Amino acid sequence: MAAALSTDPTDLREETQLSAQQSAVARMSRAARLLLNAEHLPPHARTLLNRMCLPVTALWCRVLRFDPSAPDWPDRDRFVVPSTTMLPLLRAMLRLTGPATEAALPLEYGRHPAVEVAPGLAGQGVAAAVGMAFAEQTLARRFGRSLVNHRTWVLAQDTDLATGVAMEAAQLAGRFGLDRLAVLVTPPAGPDNGDFADSLTRFSASGWTVRKVDAGNAAAISSALAATLRARKPTLIACLPSAPGHALAEPHLPPEEELTGPWSPTARRGATTRRSWLRRFARHRLRTAFEREIQGQRPALFEEDWHRACHWQMQSAEGHATQDAGLAGLRALSELLPELVCLTAASAYRLDLAAPVALPATQQARARLLPAEQSCGIQDHGMAGMLNGIALHGGLLPCCAASMMTVDRMRSALRMAALMRRKVLYLLTGDGLALGDGGGGWQPVEQLASLRAMPHLAVFRPCDVRETTACWDAALNWQGGPAMLLLCPYENQHGPLPAPAFGTPSRGGYVVKQEEMRQVTLIASGPEVAIALKASHHLARQDIRATVVSIPCWELFAEQPASYRKTVLGASGLRVGIEAASGFGWERWLGEEGVFVGMDDFGTSAPANALYERFGITVEAICEKVRAHLLTSGAERGSSLRTPDQPRTRVRGPLTTRP
Amino acid sequence: MAAALSTDPTDLREETQLSAQQSAVARMSRAARLLLNAEHLPPHARTLLNRMCLPVTALWCRVLRFDPSAPDWPDRDRFVVPSTTMLPLLRAMLRLTGPATEAALPLEYGRHPAVEVAPGLAGQGVAAAVGMAFAEQTLARRFGRSLVNHRTWVLAQDTDLATGVAMEAAQLAGRFGLDRLAVLVTPPAGPDNGDFADSLTRFSASGWTVRKVDAGNAAAISSALAATLRARKPTLIACLPSAPGHALAEPHLPPEEELTGPWSPTARRGATTRRSWLRRFARHRLRTAFEREIQGQRPALFEEDWHRACHWQMQSAEGHATQDAGLAGLRALSELLPELVCLTAASAYRLDLAAPVALPATQQARARLLPAEQSCGIQDHGMAGMLNGIALHGGLLPCCAASMMTVDRMRSALRMAALMRRKVLYLLTGDGLALGDGGGGWQPVEQLASLRAMPHLAVFRPCDVRETTACWDAALNWQGGPAMLLLCPYENQHGPLPAPAFGTPSRGGYVVKQEEMRQVTLIASGPEVAIALKASHHLARQDIRATVVSIPCWELFAEQPASYRKTVLGASGLRVGIEAASGFGWERWLGEEGVFVGMDDFGTSAPANALYERFGITVEAICEKVRAHLLTSGAERGSSLRTPDQPRTRVRGPLTTRP
Repeated sequence: MAAALSTDPTDLREETQLSAQQSAVARMSRAARLLLNAEHLPPHARTLLNRMCLPVTALWCRVLRFDPSAPDWPDRDRFVVPSTTMLPLLRAMLRLTGPATEAALPLEYGRHPAVEVAPGLAGQGVAAAVGMAFAEQTLARRFGRSLVNHRTWVLAQDTDLATGVAMEAAQLAGRFGLDRLAVLVTPPAGPDNGDFADSLTRFSASGWTVRKVDAGNAAAISSALAATLRARKPTLIACLPSAPGHALAEPHLPPEEELTGPWSPTARRGATTRRSWLRRFARHRLRTAFEREIQGQRPALFEEDWHRACHWQMQSAEGHATQDAGLAGLRALSELLPELVCLTAASAYRLDLAAPVALPATQQARARLLPAEQSCGIQDHGMAGMLNGIALHGGLLPCCAASMMTVDRMRSALRMAALMRRKVLYLLTGDGLALGDGGGGWQPVEQLASLRAMPHLAVFRPCDVRETTACWDAALNWQGGPAMLLLCPYENQHGPLPAPAFGTPSRGGYVVKQEEMRQVTLIASGPEVAIALKASHHLARQDIRATVVSIPCWELFAEQPASYRKTVLGASGLRVGIEAASGFGWERWLGEEGVFVGMDDFGTSAPANALYERFGITVEAICEKVRAHLLTSGAERGSSLRTPDQPRTRVRGPLTTRP
Repeated sequence: MAAALSTDPTDLREETQLSAQQSAVARMSRAARLLLNAEHLPPHARTLLNRMCLPVTALWCRVLRFDPSAPDWPDRDRFVVPSTTMLPLLRAMLRLTGPATEAALPLEYGRHPAVEVAPGLAGQGVAAAVGMAFAEQTLARRFGRSLVNHRTWVLAQDTDLATGVAMEAAQLAGRFGLDRLAVLVTPPAGPDNGDFADSLTRFSASGWTVRKVDAGNAAAISSALAATLRARKPTLIACLPSAPGHALAEPHLPPEEELTGPWSPTARRGATTRRSWLRRFARHRLRTAFEREIQGQRPALFEEDWHRACHWQMQSAEGHATQDAGLAGLRALSELLPELVCLTAASAYRLDLAAPVALPATQQARARLLPAEQSCGIQDHGMAGMLNGIALHGGLLPCCAASMMTVDRMRSALRMAALMRRKVLYLLTGDGLALGDGGGGWQPVEQLASLRAMPHLAVFRPCDVRETTACWDAALNWQGGPAMLLLCPYENQHGPLPAPAFGTPSRGGYVVKQEEMRQVTLIASGPEVAIALKASHHLARQDIRATVVSIPCWELFAEQPASYRKTVLGASGLRVGIEAASGFGWERWLGEEGVFVGMDDFGTSAPANALYERFGITVEAICEKVRAHLLTSGAERGSSLRTPDQPRTRVRGPLTTRP
């Protein structure tokens, strides 16, 4: 599997032969080393960076498809540096190859075009790189190798490889056969107790080619890079520390000024490659489509087509649950947007509520959402990391389907998508008190609050088919971050809801059922809107006027003008929040005297309706709470019923927390 | 590595020889199969359960240390079934071995004593089992093999092994040499494209012994189980589907009634083993300590000793940051509680703020928190899963130190601890706008809200050394769930805070600085309390009376009587929340007209003080907001300054969201 280390002195002959090509590498490597040594670095980082200097220089000088004058050229090789430790090497490469103006930019994601990914927790960059390679593979299939013909290189650390997310992503890379992905890595600077070697074996077992090279041996590095270009699998190049004798084998050539800047081998090669790419691009038959997708624009007439396709798909959907509607929307989208890439986790298929256990992998084929979906099995976290990479690559719209419960696993990748402001669509199935048999471990409680707390993420929790369509629309139009649809596998208990009485779902919150002179506002989302509607009918029979509000998306609703929010939520009267989830954060809409009807504990094993009863999320419980509250507040003020919709003198009562 | 499959017909002779011992296994397996076939199961589950029937019966009949009459005996073998799919096999075993009363209990965690873990996402049960084996190893070192001499068996699914958390936990099991851990697994029921074989190789690369056996061959299973008992490494037993001929080799014996219930081989062997254990236990010199720890009780005079040790350790702590104080508390605790087990993640050591990068593994030795800590490297998620297992095992108090940022990775394991109501202590370092260089990926924003939303979890965010001690106290006394201390590596900007003016930190929230006739209440937590105090001094110079409140623990504060909360937060006046985190959920304390000063975006790369300024979490910004708000609300009512601490007529204003 691994190339033999060329520690043989007979290699010297070959080295002399190659020296014409390699002297440039050796000189640039030396220049990079001088730059590195000028930086203030902790000792272990210095060791690692110096060790990786020759392999990385060889890559940049002779292989990397990178034009320093156009660092965001779509067909460039992606050089991913996921940790701050390794960034000085990228800085050195950019200094040596690029114009001085670029070198002066801070080396941060979003500020320097050559930084492909923001640094984060170990392993996330490897998963993102898998996504980039996947995006390349997908685009190459559509546009051909004349337009899409690049590779993804990762300068990783040993700790990256040992994380769960990297191991999951590595399995996915092996499964998808991403042969244009290569990870360069070196063992830790200190003593290593075999963990590094174990990581290599694990990658090898995940369908990777693992090559070990002497990090100080230019010829070995050169042949490893050449072999990587021919590889049929993703490649891991382990750059091992040089034997002491070998470290000195590098020719001592002075750094030459003409090797840096636009005269560097990288710059010359990159400029030539890009020019010929531009010529091919200019006369390519799919040029317009490629341009549109790279720029992330919608096709012409998308809005009309989308509504038509959506309507058609919704009609042909089997059920009326939001989950059916959401997946129908996905199918409609996949017909219109060739750039849509859908990854699905095995957990997404936990649809079959009658069966007491999860569907097996073999039955998934039956339940496929889309003809073109890519199954990611159980590797939810690796999949979420990949989605980021697809979004970072550009040219594709990444989307995934997974179970609501696995969002905890995907969270650290999701956060990076939000932080880097990339558009990723998440369809989370199995929301609500849905899967009664699996115990509390399969019932979302605090997930909803924890997602709403994340900046730049839009969370949609639609209640019926109409709202699901509106939420799909809003999710597609959500700018600057990921968007998420939480979908419930149950039929709506109420049947089709009435048309909005005031406002629209696309504004994040609206009035479903308006009562003149409202005494109570019932605020709900998702499956609980139907319960709220039923409760309002019950209350009406008792002469209590209850308006029903649905807030499918807090983020959008919070963006609306205060006057709109006030009209929807009502200027006065009791506010009751109803959601089969933790009430954390609901005070924002309920105010201090509001009542929340939801879950303050984890779920348990029971059929769904029994769970709604167990947690008191029922029409009867809501009506009871409303009556009790109205009586108390009426008694306080000495009248039996308060004058509705009038500002009133109010003593700030005791703070209600999760009533 | 793997035992050869005995498909050789010459084995039949050996089988006849062994049949005296194995006829019981064969008969019980047949009885179990009848029970399984009587259940309503989806087809793939039926295939898997039938395949695992013989291996599991062999384990229960001949190896498992389990007394059905005392299923919670501390020295029992742990038989972990982490998925609902495999539970019917456990139910069959319990039916065949135990008394009828036990068999009638629902097979759920917390309701049936033989259920060791609640089902959840794939892989979490494997990680918990690693923790149980770790707990056994730790307890055996203290109490010797005469008291602690059991094993942990896991009945896993193929999907469990492919998850990141299982692979991380597998690495940890290999690193800690948990030779008393064995995982039984079988390939998926449908076609498998090599993923299962890859999983085996990955486990083998993580320091496990992997044995492949024919699931229908009793002799092969028997020898694999015997080899497992002698193993020096954790073992994975892959039970492969039988060759068609072999499946029939099982002797067709009728199920016999005398093999079930208390007369079963398991019950007889278990009762004998437990009786002799009880005899050894009765005269063991560490009997009292063992009993105390298994029951989770504190040693006598713990309170006084703890305060003394804590005081001493705090004094000898190097700095005055809460991180130093928190770790000093941990050292104090480790002196007093021999049952304390501390796992540390490499991320916990990101202490050195001067260094632009994380500390390398080699420098960790220098920074060790405790002499007895166990380093879990980069495998945070696997570590969190292990902590659950340690807590589930009993007899130990699991604790971990990790970086605040990695909590997203640990979240799905943390949730299981909260769901199962197990006490696990988390010390999270690097809280606050602390690590300026790593970019937004290393700065917590929404983590705090997402943790506070989780039921049964207590989150403590102390502001100084005194509060840290109180929070340690409260965390130790927190019942029925995990507790978490968020620790900041910075020195408190204000220096030592004054003594509480009203209330105590142990009640979750209290008044740090009281002003008579308060106009403003500044509510903060953690490092921001110092900023709030400075702001109150500034405001005092402008004749604005601002009381400062610290809420280190929302969960505890919410549990206090409403009158206490009202006195602390003030009956009226402007409330300002100050926290270097997302404001999600703060409306609970601020009310509708409150103002929140915090972060509405992810962090970025900058020194910490620059970040405080960038996000406007400064004394000046707070004072400016307070003045502006007081002026506006004053103008509204036609007077320049409102009468403080008096209920006032108030028009419900526009809803403020994240101002």
